[in-house]
Amino acid sequence: MISGRFGRLAPGVRDVLPAEAYRMRKLKDTFSALVETWGYQEVVTPTFEYIENLASEELQEGNFFKFLDRQGHLMALRPDMTRPIARLVATRMKGVTPPLRLYYLANVFNYEQPQVGRQREFYQAGVELMGYSSPEADAEVVALVTEYLIQTGLDDFQIGIGNVGIFHGLVQQLNLSKEEAQNLKDALGNKDYVRVEELLMQHAATPEEARRALDLIELRGGPEVLDKAIELAQVGPTTDALDNLRQLYSCLKDYGVERYITLDLGLLRGLDYYTGLVFEGYSVAMGFPICGGGRYNQLLAHFGYPMPATGFAVNLERVLVTLERLQGPPKEPQPEVLVAWEEGSLAKALDKVKELRGQNIRVITSLAECLPSKARGEAISLGVPRLIYFYANGTSEDITIQD
Amino acid sequence: MISGRFGRLAPGVRDVLPAEAYRMRKLKDTFSALVETWGYQEVVTPTFEYIENLASEELQEGNFFKFLDRQGHLMALRPDMTRPIARLVATRMKGVTPPLRLYYLANVFNYEQPQVGRQREFYQAGVELMGYSSPEADAEVVALVTEYLIQTGLDDFQIGIGNVGIFHGLVQQLNLSKEEAQNLKDALGNKDYVRVEELLMQHAATPEEARRALDLIELRGGPEVLDKAIELAQVGPTTDALDNLRQLYSCLKDYGVERYITLDLGLLRGLDYYTGLVFEGYSVAMGFPICGGGRYNQLLAHFGYPMPATGFAVNLERVLVTLERLQGPPKEPQPEVLVAWEEGSLAKALDKVKELRGQNIRVITSLAECLPSKARGEAISLGVPRLIYFYANGTSEDITIQD
Repeated sequence: MISGRFGRLAPGVRDVLPAEAYRMRKLKDTFSALVETWGYQEVVTPTFEYIENLASEELQEGNFFKFLDRQGHLMALRPDMTRPIARLVATRMKGVTPPLRLYYLANVFNYEQPQVGRQREFYQAGVELMGYSSPEADAEVVALVTEYLIQTGLDDFQIGIGNVGIFHGLVQQLNLSKEEAQNLKDALGNKDYVRVEELLMQHAATPEEARRALDLIELRGGPEVLDKAIELAQVGPTTDALDNLRQLYSCLKDYGVERYITLDLGLLRGLDYYTGLVFEGYSVAMGFPICGGGRYNQLLAHFGYPMPATGFAVNLERVLVTLERLQGPPKEPQPEVLVAWEEGSLAKALDKVKELRGQNIRVITSLAECLPSKARGEAISLGVPRLIYFYANGTSEDITIQD
Repeated sequence: MISGRFGRLAPGVRDVLPAEAYRMRKLKDTFSALVETWGYQEVVTPTFEYIENLASEELQEGNFFKFLDRQGHLMALRPDMTRPIARLVATRMKGVTPPLRLYYLANVFNYEQPQVGRQREFYQAGVELMGYSSPEADAEVVALVTEYLIQTGLDDFQIGIGNVGIFHGLVQQLNLSKEEAQNLKDALGNKDYVRVEELLMQHAATPEEARRALDLIELRGGPEVLDKAIELAQVGPTTDALDNLRQLYSCLKDYGVERYITLDLGLLRGLDYYTGLVFEGYSVAMGFPICGGGRYNQLLAHFGYPMPATGFAVNLERVLVTLERLQGPPKEPQPEVLVAWEEGSLAKALDKVKELRGQNIRVITSLAECLPSKARGEAISLGVPRLIYFYANGTSEDITIQD
């Protein structure tokens, strides 16, 4: 039974000790309290599903944690929550009047090379807004993720916003094959602009056309980039995408969050289900996106219930790493009072304990009767600043402990 | 790609829709708020571990969800949290002054035949109190689970309390082989008293001895059963167990929770790591235990850090089922206000929305500008009792919607 793995964890997963668990719980509580005031309702799906519900042409099984059930059916630990929630809505919530506003706090799994900020199991806080395809719906989702990141204590973050229509416009304009389009998508997704330029040069009719395409997808900044983009854009999908971004940006100004927004016309996300808006949140203290999302108007149809939708997921592990870099290591709350007692006075002591806990004070009790000197030693060694000691005769003493 | 499993869930796992998810979240929030005032701190462990950390002689892999990682190592989804937390403490928290008070809110997995109250994935709320073996430590854990069940809204529950020493005393007295002991344990665990009687008759020296043994383990009730038990008990382990139960019961009276307590001298739990106190909570509305726990003084030593410990886990799925039977189906909170607007007044509308959400009011917004009549129709179809409509000229109207 004793192997080298006994007592150890698998690569890419971890234990969360009290201090960090406390910060994590605050992140979760803040999230559910916030999104509930925005009218979002929680749903929970199983940790594993039949692979048929999770895989797609693009989201191959390569990064899944898979296993066979006893009937020989292939299962996987969920790699994200958007597909499971689309399945849930399409199968269980068809009667509900749209829009549907749903949220989740869930762990997801991805078999990739572990490194800081990339765990194989990680926690996400996210929402899905289903039933509307308006810029106002997009804006609500972006404004909500912005408000959440502010409430977590991050304030140096930026949300990069793009629209996959700009990419589709380029594919159409340059008349790219499916494979060529995939190459361009990969290069853009990896922000490998050298490779992007190479591909554009290769496929554009003229160097001038390649230059304009490159200028377009390198545009980043405030609403002024949309004016520049209009000059550079050539075809329908791009113009529609720019229209959407202009209206979205205007709504985000109405929400008062524009200082957190950067338009990024080359932004693409890795998932193929996005059909319009895409966005990612970055902090200067973190090399990976701390959140991401976008519009996916075809995914619900895939499960038999056509409906437009948009959503986001925040990677809570990355928020934790970012907060640690910005604010230092987390601290767990310590007990505020130790209650100890002489033999025979436990009932009296527990009355006091109950009263204090009722006032939301964190109270621990000694786990055996003891003398006052021992109780004081216990308070000191546990770092508790206040000791209340009950004597057998019913009197008590309230003692401030000096370190 | 389209198989019969597309869109379906595996047996024994389920989606939780908003109404039930809301009740579940309340159960979790109540738990963390309560146990934090008792000085417990949260820890989180990975969903899967190397099988070496989870399996034991008794807890065989038969009921595990297993898979191989890419190095060919056998992994499993955690079947409980007590072992992972013992591993965590033994490997990561050795420097912390005992007692350690730890809690968790986690899903666990068990490949058993699904039925109401028996899911293959279910949520547990639990604590582990490590470092002390006193009756006061046992009492804290039992009092805490009692307090939690009261706070969930259950009030017809009873906690049955036993001590595995009584069983060990019988094994010693009847001089049972390992296999015979296991048979008796299984019969007791299944509460199959016909089989228990059969086994006792078979192994006791006299029918009188068998009768006394059976009387002992059938004792259930208040502290008076301990007096009867003393008369029936024969050997050391039993006497020690009865002493522990007497002291424990006295502490539980000091906690004021004795009306929820039933001494049950035949109680055994399925897990082999219990070394003293064992307990289970029952509601009349539920055929399975809704919580369970006990003392496990050897498990931390198994991971190289000898330390006594006691703990409990509440099965939140079963609490949900019980609450549904007692209180009826759950209801999710509905939006309280719909804010809608005429073109051009979104910014003004959103100011109001922000103000209301700041007062913790659940507000949803229309996802496109609209006329007042359409806004009213939307409020009615969504069941929102209050509509605030913003006109383009900056004025607004606050309308109560009558169904």
